[in-house]
Amino acid sequence: MIIVMKHHATAAEIENVVAQIQTLGFKAHLSQGEERTIIGVIGDERPLEPDAFELMEGVERVVRILHPFKLASRDFHPDDSIVKINGVSIGGKQIIVMAGPCSVESREQLMETAAAVKQAGAHILRGGAFKPRTSPYAFQGLGLKGLELLREARDAYHLPIITEVMSPQEVTLVAQYADILQIGARNMQNYALLHAVGEIQKPVLLKRGLMSTIEELLMAAEYILSHGNTRVMLCERGIRTFETATRNTFDVNAIPVLKALTHLPVIADPSHGTGKWELVTPIARAAIAAGADGLIVEVHCDPAHALSDGAQSLKPENFAKLIDQVRRIAHAVERTV
Amino acid sequence: MIIVMKHHATAAEIENVVAQIQTLGFKAHLSQGEERTIIGVIGDERPLEPDAFELMEGVERVVRILHPFKLASRDFHPDDSIVKINGVSIGGKQIIVMAGPCSVESREQLMETAAAVKQAGAHILRGGAFKPRTSPYAFQGLGLKGLELLREARDAYHLPIITEVMSPQEVTLVAQYADILQIGARNMQNYALLHAVGEIQKPVLLKRGLMSTIEELLMAAEYILSHGNTRVMLCERGIRTFETATRNTFDVNAIPVLKALTHLPVIADPSHGTGKWELVTPIARAAIAAGADGLIVEVHCDPAHALSDGAQSLKPENFAKLIDQVRRIAHAVERTV
Amino acid sequence: MIIVMKHHATAAEIENVVAQIQTLGFKAHLSQGEERTIIGVIGDERPLEPDAFELMEGVERVVRILHPFKLASRDFHPDDSIVKINGVSIGGKQIIVMAGPCSVESREQLMETAAAVKQAGAHILRGGAFKPRTSPYAFQGLGLKGLELLREARDAYHLPIITEVMSPQEVTLVAQYADILQIGARNMQNYALLHAVGEIQKPVLLKRGLMSTIEELLMAAEYILSHGNTRVMLCERGIRTFETATRNTFDVNAIPVLKALTHLPVIADPSHGTGKWELVTPIARAAIAAGADGLIVEVHCDPAHALSDGAQSLKPENFAKLIDQVRRIAHAVERTV
Amino acid sequence: MIIVMKHHATAAEIENVVAQIQTLGFKAHLSQGEERTIIGVIGDERPLEPDAFELMEGVERVVRILHPFKLASRDFHPDDSIVKINGVSIGGKQIIVMAGPCSVESREQLMETAAAVKQAGAHILRGGAFKPRTSPYAFQGLGLKGLELLREARDAYHLPIITEVMSPQEVTLVAQYADILQIGARNMQNYALLHAVGEIQKPVLLKRGLMSTIEELLMAAEYILSHGNTRVMLCERGIRTFETATRNTFDVNAIPVLKALTHLPVIADPSHGTGKWELVTPIARAAIAAGADGLIVEVHCDPAHALSDGAQSLKPENFAKLIDQVRRIAHAVERTV
Repeated sequence: MIIVMKHHATAAEIENVVAQIQTLGFKAHLSQGEERTIIGVIGDERPLEPDAFELMEGVERVVRILHPFKLASRDFHPDDSIVKINGVSIGGKQIIVMAGPCSVESREQLMETAAAVKQAGAHILRGGAFKPRTSPYAFQGLGLKGLELLREARDAYHLPIITEVMSPQEVTLVAQYADILQIGARNMQNYALLHAVGEIQKPVLLKRGLMSTIEELLMAAEYILSHGNTRVMLCERGIRTFETATRNTFDVNAIPVLKALTHLPVIADPSHGTGKWELVTPIARAAIAAGADGLIVEVHCDPAHALSDGAQSLKPENFAKLIDQVRRIAHAVERTV
Repeated sequence: MIIVMKHHATAAEIENVVAQIQTLGFKAHLSQGEERTIIGVIGDERPLEPDAFELMEGVERVVRILHPFKLASRDFHPDDSIVKINGVSIGGKQIIVMAGPCSVESREQLMETAAAVKQAGAHILRGGAFKPRTSPYAFQGLGLKGLELLREARDAYHLPIITEVMSPQEVTLVAQYADILQIGARNMQNYALLHAVGEIQKPVLLKRGLMSTIEELLMAAEYILSHGNTRVMLCERGIRTFETATRNTFDVNAIPVLKALTHLPVIADPSHGTGKWELVTPIARAAIAAGADGLIVEVHCDPAHALSDGAQSLKPENFAKLIDQVRRIAHAVERTV
Repeated sequence: MIIVMKHHATAAEIENVVAQIQTLGFKAHLSQGEERTIIGVIGDERPLEPDAFELMEGVERVVRILHPFKLASRDFHPDDSIVKINGVSIGGKQIIVMAGPCSVESREQLMETAAAVKQAGAHILRGGAFKPRTSPYAFQGLGLKGLELLREARDAYHLPIITEVMSPQEVTLVAQYADILQIGARNMQNYALLHAVGEIQKPVLLKRGLMSTIEELLMAAEYILSHGNTRVMLCERGIRTFETATRNTFDVNAIPVLKALTHLPVIADPSHGTGKWELVTPIARAAIAAGADGLIVEVHCDPAHALSDGAQSLKPENFAKLIDQVRRIAHAVERTV
Repeated sequence: MIIVMKHHATAAEIENVVAQIQTLGFKAHLSQGEERTIIGVIGDERPLEPDAFELMEGVERVVRILHPFKLASRDFHPDDSIVKINGVSIGGKQIIVMAGPCSVESREQLMETAAAVKQAGAHILRGGAFKPRTSPYAFQGLGLKGLELLREARDAYHLPIITEVMSPQEVTLVAQYADILQIGARNMQNYALLHAVGEIQKPVLLKRGLMSTIEELLMAAEYILSHGNTRVMLCERGIRTFETATRNTFDVNAIPVLKALTHLPVIADPSHGTGKWELVTPIARAAIAAGADGLIVEVHCDPAHALSDGAQSLKPENFAKLIDQVRRIAHAVERTV
C-alpha cells in the first residue's frame, strides 16, 4: 500500500501517518518526490483498509499494490486447477459444454431437452429449480420437484447436473441432488450464501455479477475458497453497460484477464451474455477463441413457450450447430470438445 | 405490450402471433404502418413475458407499455405513504435523518456516537451488526453482540434503530432488536431475503443496487409489498459508472423520478453515494433540494480508526454542520428537519 | 509515478527500469516490500507516459501520483477564477443563469423567449445556431442567420449571448457574434477545436462529454488554457450510465469534486442532465445546493413545436418558478441569484 | 412511432395528439387497451422527433419503431458492401489485417515496422500523423511530415495506408496521402468532420466512440453515406464501462449485431479494445470467431520507447504469431486471411 501525501503536507502529518503504520504492525518507507511525499507500507497489506489512512490529515490518496485476493491467485497457485465431476474434468485441454433449459418446467420438457443436448454432445445438464426472477409475478421455478426431475434426467442420460442455489438454507438440500451448485449473478456478493457453499464439498460455478469487477469476482471466489471448498469455477455471463442493443455486454476481455490472474477454470455463458438466441453461437465461438474452458448454454425444445428466458434459448438443432462450430474453433486453439 | 413485426413479415406469421396472444388470454389489435405491422396486446400485461413473442417468426421486437410494478406505483396508490416508527413519521413534511457508525465496533464507540448524533438532531440511529464485506479477511461485524449494543443505545438515547439483515435465517432475530431492517445494495435482488422481510411486520429500508435501474428497485420493493409488508422505504445510495473520482455516482435524478413513480418514501445516502467524507454534506444538501424525504449518514467519532468505511464517515462536529445546512435547505423547499 | 514490479522480478529487471527512469531525466527511488519492489519516479511526471514502463520486463503496473493537469488545478491557482462578461461575473457569490431555446428557430421565437427569460431574471441568453444532431435528417440549425438573430436579441434585451461552435473554421465567425463560445459535449475531446478556441480571447463554456471522466474534462480545459485563453468555464450536463429512466445521469458529485480540484467556474445544465422538463427544476435546485456557480437551462415558448430538445425545455412560466426556487436555495447556501 | 397515453388521459388530450400527428403529415391509429390508449403514427417516422409528442398533455411516453438509420441498414441494402482499395477487398471472404505503429515517429521506425508487418502478412499499413492526445503536453504527431513518411512506406512496401484525420480543414490534405481515412473514437460525433469526409471519394474507417451505442455508430455512418461517400467501414474498438482491469471493454457482441443490422464491413481493434498487449492476440482471435471482417492492430519494434500507446503495441514477432493464430480461426469459420 502506498500513501500519497498532499502537496503541502506538514512534517507532523507525515509523522502521524508513519506512526499509524507502525501501530498497525507494518513498516513505513518514505520517498520524497519533487511535489509530494510518498509513504510505502511494508508488510502483507491484504487485511489493511485504505480508509485507515485516507482520512488522516495531509493524506491525498492511498493506492493498493497487491490484489486483495490470495487463494484465488496464480501467485499462490501457479498451475491450472482442474475440477473433476463424475469423470468430467473442467479446466484441462477439453472444452466442457453445459446445456439445458433455463427452468425445469415439466418432466417431459426436461427429458426431451436432456436427450437432445446429450445427443448433440453436451457434457453436463443445466436446469433451474429455484429461479431468481425480477418480478414476483413471474414463474418462480418448481423447487424440490424440479430437483427430483433433474436427478431423474441425470440418471437416465448419465449427465452430471448443475442447478442454482439461492439461499443458505437450501444449500444442503440442493447439494443432495446436484453435482455442481450454481451461484447466480445477482447473488455473487450474497456473503451468507458464499459462506454456506464454502463449507460443503461440492463444486461451485460462481457467476460474475452484472455490476461486478473482475477483482470483485475473484474476491467472491476467495470467500468460498477461504471456507474450505477448493472446487470453484468462474463464469463470465455479460455485464451491464450503456448499450441496449443486447441484454448484457459479454465481456470477452475478462476471459484472458481471468486466465492470467487465477488458476480457477473459466466458463462462458453466451446465453445471458447476449440475451438473444441469434447471438449465442457467434459469442460461444468467440469465448472459446479467447481461451474459455467451457460453455453454459440455454437450450429449449420450444423456446416460444418457455416459462423463462425463451428469447435467449437455442433449439436443439441450433445447439447441435453450435457444438459443431465450437469444435472447429477448439481445434484451431489446440483444444478438444 | 406492443409487438413490432419485421418489414417483410408474412400474413401467416402475423396470424400466428395473434393466435399466441389469444391463447394466453389476451386480445390482439392490429395496426398496419407503412413499413411494419404492429400488434397491440390488450389486457394486464404485467405477468406476460416479452420472450413469449420475441422468438416467434416474423417478430422484430416487443415493447412493454406498462411498468411491471403495481403495488409500488402511484397509479395504484396515489397518495404518499407515510411510515411511522415509534413516533417518527417518514415520508411526510419532516425530513428524517438516520445517523451512526457504519459498523458497531464496541459499546463505548456506539454509545459515544449515539449521544453525538442525538445531540446534533438525528431521529434514528444506524449501525451495522452483520456486515457484508468485499473481503473475507475484513471485519465481518459483531453479529448478535452488535444487536444487543444497538438495543442498549436505543433505550439509552430514545432513538429507533436501523440495522442490516443479510440472510433469511437472520430476519426473525434481527427483527427482535431493530426498528427498521435494512436490505443492503448487494442484496437488492436477493429474492429469498426479500421474501422473508415481506412476511414480517417491520419497516424495511431497501437500498438500490450499485447497478440496478430505478425500475428494478421498484420491482424489488414489489417483492416485499406483494408478500404483505407495506412499510417499505427506498434508498438512493449511488450507482456504479465509469467515473472513478468518487466511489459511486450519487444519482440525484433518481429522487424526483422515484417521487413521481411511487408513493414510497425516498431516503438518500450521501455517505455511500460519494465514498468521501468531504462530499457528504454538499450531496446531502443536494438530495434534500431534489426532494428526498430523509438521509442516512455515517458518523464516527474517530473515522481514521473505524473498522469499516472510515473514509466516508463524518466526525460529530461535521455531522452537526450537515444538520444545520440541511435544515436551511429544507426550509427553502418548505420542509422541516 | 510509481512502478510496481512483479512478485519475482529479477535484479536485472529492476536495474533496467531504474536505467530507463534516469535516461528520461528523472531520479529513481527504490522501496523493497515483502512481496514486491516498488520504484518511485522523482520529478515532474506530467509529460511522462506510464506506457514507457508498463511494457518493461518485470513490471506489474504503473500508478500516476500527480493529476495530469496543471493550469486548471487549484494547486497552481488556489483562488477561484472569476470570468467577467459585459458586467456579469461568473464564479463569484452570485449564481448566474443562462437560458433560452435549444435552437434559434426564427426571429419571433427568439425574441419572445429572450423577453421571457430576461423578465424572469436570467443573466445570459443561450441559443444554438450551429447544431450537432445525431441524425443527418434532423434540423441542423440556422447557421449565420441564427447568429445574426442572437445578436439582435442581445442588443434588444441587453443580455450577453452564448452559442455553440462546432468546428475550428467557424471559431472566428462565431466569436464575432457571441459573448461566450460553447463547446458541446460531443466535441469535448475535439482537439483541433479546443486548440482553436484556446487562441482567441473569448470566454468558453466547456461541456463535459457524456463519456468523459472529471479528469478528462480538466485535461480538455488544460488544452484551452495552455493555448493562452484563461477564461474557461466547465459544465456538468449529465453522463451516460446504464439507467434509462432519464436521458442522462446528472452527476451531482462532480460539482463539489470540481470545485475542490479546480479554480474554474462550474455551471450545471439540468436540461441535458435529465432530458425531461419535469426534472429540470428539482435538479437545478440540487445543483445549486451542491455548490454550482450557475445554470444553463433550455426555455421555449412552445416546447411541443420546438425543432429540437422540446422534451427538456421549460415554458417561460415554469422557468420563472425555477428562478424563484433557485433563489431560495441560493439564499440557503449564502449566495444570491 | 407509438404514443402511449397516461392512465387517465382525457378524450380531449387524445384528440390533440391525433391532431398534431395529422398536422405533421402522418396518419393516427388508435388502440384502446385496458389501462392505456395507444396511438400509432403511420408514415416514415425517421425525420420525426419523439419530443414533438412527449410534451403534450396526457402523453406518458413515445416509442420509436424504426431504426433511425436508412442508408446504413440491411433493409435498404441487403447484400454485404465490399470496399475495394488498390486490389484489397474488405467485407468479403478474406479477413483483412491493418497493422503498424500508433504514431509515425521517424522514417526509420516506420520503415522498419512496415517491413515487419508486410513480412508477417498484413494487407494495409496503419500509422498516425495527426494524433488526438488526452494531454496537451503529450506528443501530438509529426503532421505533414508523418503523411510524407507514410507515403514513402506505402510505395516501398506496396501497402495501402490508413491514417487518422482530426479536422475538416485537413481532409483534403490527408486524402492526398492516404488510401483510407480514419475517424477516431473521440470524433465519432464530430459532425463537421463526418460531413467533410462524406463529400470526398476515399474509403473511411469510422471508429465507434467509447460510450456510443451501436445505433449512434450507425447514425454517424449515415452522416457520411448521406453526403455521398458510400465506402464506409465500421470499427469496434472497445467501450467504456465500470471495469478497470482493461483500458476499455471490447464489445464482442457488437460484431454479430452490426453484421445483422448493416451491410457495411466491420473491423475489430483489439489494441484499443483491451489496452494491453498480452490481450491483443486472444481478443483478435475472438473477434474473427465472432464474424469480424478484419483487424486493425498496433505494432511497434520497440514498444517500451513508443511515443504513444506502447502498452498495447505488439512486437513484430508477436504480431506474426497473431497472424498465424488468426489464420487458424479464419479457417475454422470458413474464411481466409
